[in-house]
Amino acid sequence: MTPIYDRVALIGLGLIASSMALAMKRQGLAGEIVGTARSAATRQIAVEIGLCDRITETAADAVKGADLVVLCVPVGAMGQVAAEIGPHLARGATVTDVGSVKRAVIEAVQPHLPDYVEFIPAHPLAGTEHSGPRSGFAELFDNRWCLLVPQPDSDPEAVLRLRQFWEGLGANVDEMDADHHDLVLAVTSHAPHLIAYTMVGVADDLRRVTDSEVIKYSAAGFRDFTRIAASDPTMWRDVFLNNKDATLEILGRFTEELFALQRAIRTGDGDHLHAYFTRTRAIRRGIISAGQDTDAPDFGRSGRKV
Amino acid sequence: MTPIYDRVALIGLGLIASSMALAMKRQGLAGEIVGTARSAATRQIAVEIGLCDRITETAADAVKGADLVVLCVPVGAMGQVAAEIGPHLARGATVTDVGSVKRAVIEAVQPHLPDYVEFIPAHPLAGTEHSGPRSGFAELFDNRWCLLVPQPDSDPEAVLRLRQFWEGLGANVDEMDADHHDLVLAVTSHAPHLIAYTMVGVADDLRRVTDSEVIKYSAAGFRDFTRIAASDPTMWRDVFLNNKDATLEILGRFTEELFALQRAIRTGDGDHLHAYFTRTRAIRRGIISAGQDTDAPDFGRSGRKV
Repeated sequence: MTPIYDRVALIGLGLIASSMALAMKRQGLAGEIVGTARSAATRQIAVEIGLCDRITETAADAVKGADLVVLCVPVGAMGQVAAEIGPHLARGATVTDVGSVKRAVIEAVQPHLPDYVEFIPAHPLAGTEHSGPRSGFAELFDNRWCLLVPQPDSDPEAVLRLRQFWEGLGANVDEMDADHHDLVLAVTSHAPHLIAYTMVGVADDLRRVTDSEVIKYSAAGFRDFTRIAASDPTMWRDVFLNNKDATLEILGRFTEELFALQRAIRTGDGDHLHAYFTRTRAIRRGIISAGQDTDAPDFGRSGRKV
Repeated sequence: MTPIYDRVALIGLGLIASSMALAMKRQGLAGEIVGTARSAATRQIAVEIGLCDRITETAADAVKGADLVVLCVPVGAMGQVAAEIGPHLARGATVTDVGSVKRAVIEAVQPHLPDYVEFIPAHPLAGTEHSGPRSGFAELFDNRWCLLVPQPDSDPEAVLRLRQFWEGLGANVDEMDADHHDLVLAVTSHAPHLIAYTMVGVADDLRRVTDSEVIKYSAAGFRDFTRIAASDPTMWRDVFLNNKDATLEILGRFTEELFALQRAIRTGDGDHLHAYFTRTRAIRRGIISAGQDTDAPDFGRSGRKV
């Protein structure tokens, strides 16, 4: 395949960047892949595993001559990285990111970029509970969604090129405005993550139920929460601090509904519970029909495929 | 293998009973497997797929001459079934169950059983989001825990025999008293299920975030909740109504902790969030070390095995 970009610079080399590097190579999407990370240890690993064509010590060096620059750092570090690379960006380059929050990233990054680059924020809805440069794999984005958030003055050609790039990485692409993105993700990702973190923390706190019991008997449901609650702490701290309003709004709705169900339990209102649990079962079927999850029982963990 | 019981009667033919039937056959644990279900349609399916050696129309018929009787009905139906079978149980038979709650089941079942049978409640910590007689598979209990709850007057020989039976089905076996069981399960299973049901219900309610968006973008975390929230509504209604106190206690602790984290988000206390998320990550490692889950990213769904 003809490369879509001649030189792609990955700033930050965690799960998403390393998966992008491998998926780019799989399809030949980039003439050259340049990578950098703040930590010398991370850069060293990237060199050892041959993740990129070239690793630079600084972000400023990485972006020189790149026609695509991808910010793959935690949301809270985006502004600082943008300030560092701003003066070194090539004329006509596209700058994008992979942050889980879009409004706050736009506000942090935009002011540091020169007029002669295109800034097109993006968010691939893909990840695992693992992190770091060794955790990447080429298939991470296959059949997952990547949301592009073009700006009012974005060049349609540049948006189309970025869309083709993400499709080349295996993703389905949609466009969305920043505020709607942040609300949708508060529902589908940010609130669920906070809830999972909370439940796992509560289990850890309970002294009467020893650690070993919680762990031994986790297969009854709890272990699904622990997978989510094993996600990268820095990334998630930044997500919550930077999508504060939408997350708190959804958590407010969640608490309201939880109280109603607790009340149904306390008063013995079995009909309310049964009706609620029947409704939620239908949503699962929708996700499986949409190809966004497996119908194999227990995610296929149990050894039985369908 | 020499059968552990000459005749096993399964009352109720859902996911657990059908998996038990298949696992018994795999190891030759029963001389004869007799099954029954309240619904004629379920009995018909069981006949079609050859699940048991014999299917009876009534529970009273099923238990005749059985040396092991397993109650595999929702917790709320246990008392009624016990009343029905009580007069028909064979002298010296062991009666057990697979309910997710133990104190309430003991209170509902015990009074209906004659003195000349052994009642040894049990709970296999295994399941999937699927239900019904076609959903069973022989591997369901492999390396999962089964908790036995012997009564003060239980015959040690009968307890040992039931333990060997469950080990033959593939499970690891522990013993526990009923109240402790109900508290541990409130933490590892009941509270997580209610929370998942709640979050999925909230997502379904939000009119600004259309159904299709919630479903399309579910891979960001939400879909793990939907698997749990697709579990059998009747079974779970009964669990909550019958483990009310422990579930409400854990949910109270959960809400308290959730409010503390919401407050940290609102006030921008990143250190609190980061410390909390780092602690929860460690629990995941414990579960993987204990062999209770896979370390494959995203439960192996993403196609990358480790």
